[in-house]
Amino acid sequence: MAINTIKFDEKGLIPAIVQDVNTGEVLMFAWMNRESFKRTLENRIMTYWSRSRQKLWVKGETSGNIQEVREVYIDCDADCLLFKVEPKGVGAACHEGYRSCFFRSVNIPDGEFAVVGEKLFEPEEVYNK
Amino acid sequence: MAINTIKFDEKGLIPAIVQDVNTGEVLMFAWMNRESFKRTLENRIMTYWSRSRQKLWVKGETSGNIQEVREVYIDCDADCLLFKVEPKGVGAACHEGYRSCFFRSVNIPDGEFAVVGEKLFEPEEVYNK
Repeated sequence: MAINTIKFDEKGLIPAIVQDVNTGEVLMFAWMNRESFKRTLENRIMTYWSRSRQKLWVKGETSGNIQEVREVYIDCDADCLLFKVEPKGVGAACHEGYRSCFFRSVNIPDGEFAVVGEKLFEPEEVYNK
Repeated sequence: MAINTIKFDEKGLIPAIVQDVNTGEVLMFAWMNRESFKRTLENRIMTYWSRSRQKLWVKGETSGNIQEVREVYIDCDADCLLFKVEPKGVGAACHEGYRSCFFRSVNIPDGEFAVVGEKLFEPEEVYNK
């Protein structure tokens, strides 16, 4: 099984890049352990390892913005995964309500930030229910 | 300066996702330290921190496949960077000669790999000169 050749790091984790299968927009970046990767392939729903909560995390279980897996890729060193997903719900990947977690641009060359992303929901209306 | 709000990890590193500015294809994933990020913004050429060689790494310095920086984004937690780049040379991001390091798909749900990417050069012809 190819899954056995995947290189998890010293914490048992591998980075996961998540891209919208329709638009190509990079939506988020998170981490997986072996169990979350297995579940993601089996259930075809993005399931991460939350480093802050130290538990499996089905993306969208609270907000409804689950991500259905369409395509999976692995890099040359077998130590990074790329997922193309179909965002469900209102389609927001970010807990701050934006379509993509990368909703701020960094100015070149001074490094100042500017919000450029599209906000799809107000976090306090979704998470404080 | 926004650069001071960026969260580098316990090793002083931040993940960098690299996307083709024209096609949206995710080309590679690498790491930056503060110095490589500064140089990337200043020189507008992707410059990483090589964890294996423990030194700054100007992508393409050997192969000629440098990456010119066009756009930079940072995620909600300020702990991951996204770069949109213009690939130069033959446009191969991968040291194995492929356009993207993510040249293998992972089958759902059995996890088997298959090469699907486009190979643009033969590594032995470029690196052994």
